[in-house]
Amino acid sequence: MKLTILGCYSATPRRITNPTSQVLEIKNHLFLVDCGEGTQVQLRKNKIKFSRIKHIFISHLHGDHYFGLVGLISTFKLLSREADLHIYAPKGLKEVITLQMKLSDSWTNYRLIFHELDSKTSELLFEDENVEVYTIPLKHRVYTNGFLFKEKPGKRKLDMEAVKNANIDLAYYRKLQQGFDVKNNDGVLIDNRNVTIPPSKPKSYAFCSDTMFDENIVPIIKDVDALYHESTFLEEHEHLAEPTKHSTAKQAAKIAKKANVGKLILGHYSTRYDGLEGFKSEAQEIFKNSELAEEGKIIEF
Amino acid sequence: MKLTILGCYSATPRRITNPTSQVLEIKNHLFLVDCGEGTQVQLRKNKIKFSRIKHIFISHLHGDHYFGLVGLISTFKLLSREADLHIYAPKGLKEVITLQMKLSDSWTNYRLIFHELDSKTSELLFEDENVEVYTIPLKHRVYTNGFLFKEKPGKRKLDMEAVKNANIDLAYYRKLQQGFDVKNNDGVLIDNRNVTIPPSKPKSYAFCSDTMFDENIVPIIKDVDALYHESTFLEEHEHLAEPTKHSTAKQAAKIAKKANVGKLILGHYSTRYDGLEGFKSEAQEIFKNSELAEEGKIIEF
Repeated sequence: MKLTILGCYSATPRRITNPTSQVLEIKNHLFLVDCGEGTQVQLRKNKIKFSRIKHIFISHLHGDHYFGLVGLISTFKLLSREADLHIYAPKGLKEVITLQMKLSDSWTNYRLIFHELDSKTSELLFEDENVEVYTIPLKHRVYTNGFLFKEKPGKRKLDMEAVKNANIDLAYYRKLQQGFDVKNNDGVLIDNRNVTIPPSKPKSYAFCSDTMFDENIVPIIKDVDALYHESTFLEEHEHLAEPTKHSTAKQAAKIAKKANVGKLILGHYSTRYDGLEGFKSEAQEIFKNSELAEEGKIIEF
Repeated sequence: MKLTILGCYSATPRRITNPTSQVLEIKNHLFLVDCGEGTQVQLRKNKIKFSRIKHIFISHLHGDHYFGLVGLISTFKLLSREADLHIYAPKGLKEVITLQMKLSDSWTNYRLIFHELDSKTSELLFEDENVEVYTIPLKHRVYTNGFLFKEKPGKRKLDMEAVKNANIDLAYYRKLQQGFDVKNNDGVLIDNRNVTIPPSKPKSYAFCSDTMFDENIVPIIKDVDALYHESTFLEEHEHLAEPTKHSTAKQAAKIAKKANVGKLILGHYSTRYDGLEGFKSEAQEIFKNSELAEEGKIIEF
């Protein structure tokens, strides 16, 4: 998986910082996650092909997470997009977008498919043969979901030399890839493990923004390879985290530790701070493998 | 008057170009005219104080003219704005903005006052002792207004030496500024013109975007000091101007000439062109005093 950070600050776009947006490349999909104002320009800056984005996931309807969406939809139209676009977002977004299309008398020439969310428990949003996406219910001031992106276990790979030496007919290759033992041309049962290589462990990524510290998410994100967890505040402003239903870097790290994740990625920084190093050092006190989201940064796992 | 160009391209924001937005400084007002996506960042880049913006004029509800507005309103709230904000815009915008505020459960802590427009004839939108703003009905694919900003005639200035020599009582100074002849302390009627200086000629600015070539606007914008007229296309694409209800640079220049304006400012360029010089040269063939809107450019008149 390859995660590109387009924006990782809270609240308001500025000259040098952008509100939340990320692109996750997973098994040939490019998933756009949140879409603050300016996202389409960030996509261009980061040379991400618009046409490859077919699914957009919006966590919640605070402006810094979706005000760039209507412009992106409109630009897709101007670029003569033909492919369907799926949008997964809290109930209400469809009305916002369609109202604006109606007032501008500009409907898309591609299919715009809204999947409006209102469930308070984790649900499967998307599935194909390689990938699954689930919601992660979060606790924020408005209805909010994080998203869990999971690769499905891949097929076993054929060890072609071993397969040929074992004298197995081509017709059985598919069965071998699926993990079955098969009989060879001489009628001997061949142990699958002797002629195939196990697939690499499926990867997973959890996106959790915006949320207050909430241990209820731990079972859902358990053991993910990478967790993006918002860290709006440093410890000195912990008293602001609860009323605004945001988290500190330390709280993010506590969740990462409890969920035994591979790597913690911090973001959604309040624009009140001059630098970001404090976020990293405070998180690392609790969870060593913590790193900073930064605009334009590519994180592979 | 001082006009700052924040964005002057059509359609879609890109790395180096922004959709329509301008700030007009006139008699201590800062009027924001149109507000495409990214306008709040452009305001920051151009060091324009957010708190001085109290009136926003939106020409029409195509996204490249207003998608930045909801974010700006939201940022004003985050910055603890207290002053009223007046928005003059086509009917429908209030619903778009209030729906988004409702869904985000974030209402402004300042008064947000919508003046929704649907008149098809020019009307007075704003007036105080120094300034008047009128709509300019334009012909575009959706309901659209340009805006005419006019200074009111100022008071005459006292020529203090002449006033004292004429032996006029202080009580009459106000009358003199208003242009009246007054009697001096000796009972002699003093000709106003001998003791006062006429005010400078009131300035005016017309903003016309988006519109097809339409001579009906000429009487409204007659003799303005500066006219911004959209020029989406060069002459080679004139065949696109009519169906999209836009103008070419030459058509903009024809309007400028017929209206006898002081200066023509071109803008709303299609992003299909590499450079802008063609717009200027084509317009100048018809109207010499044509210049290009360019981002960050300040035009004083």
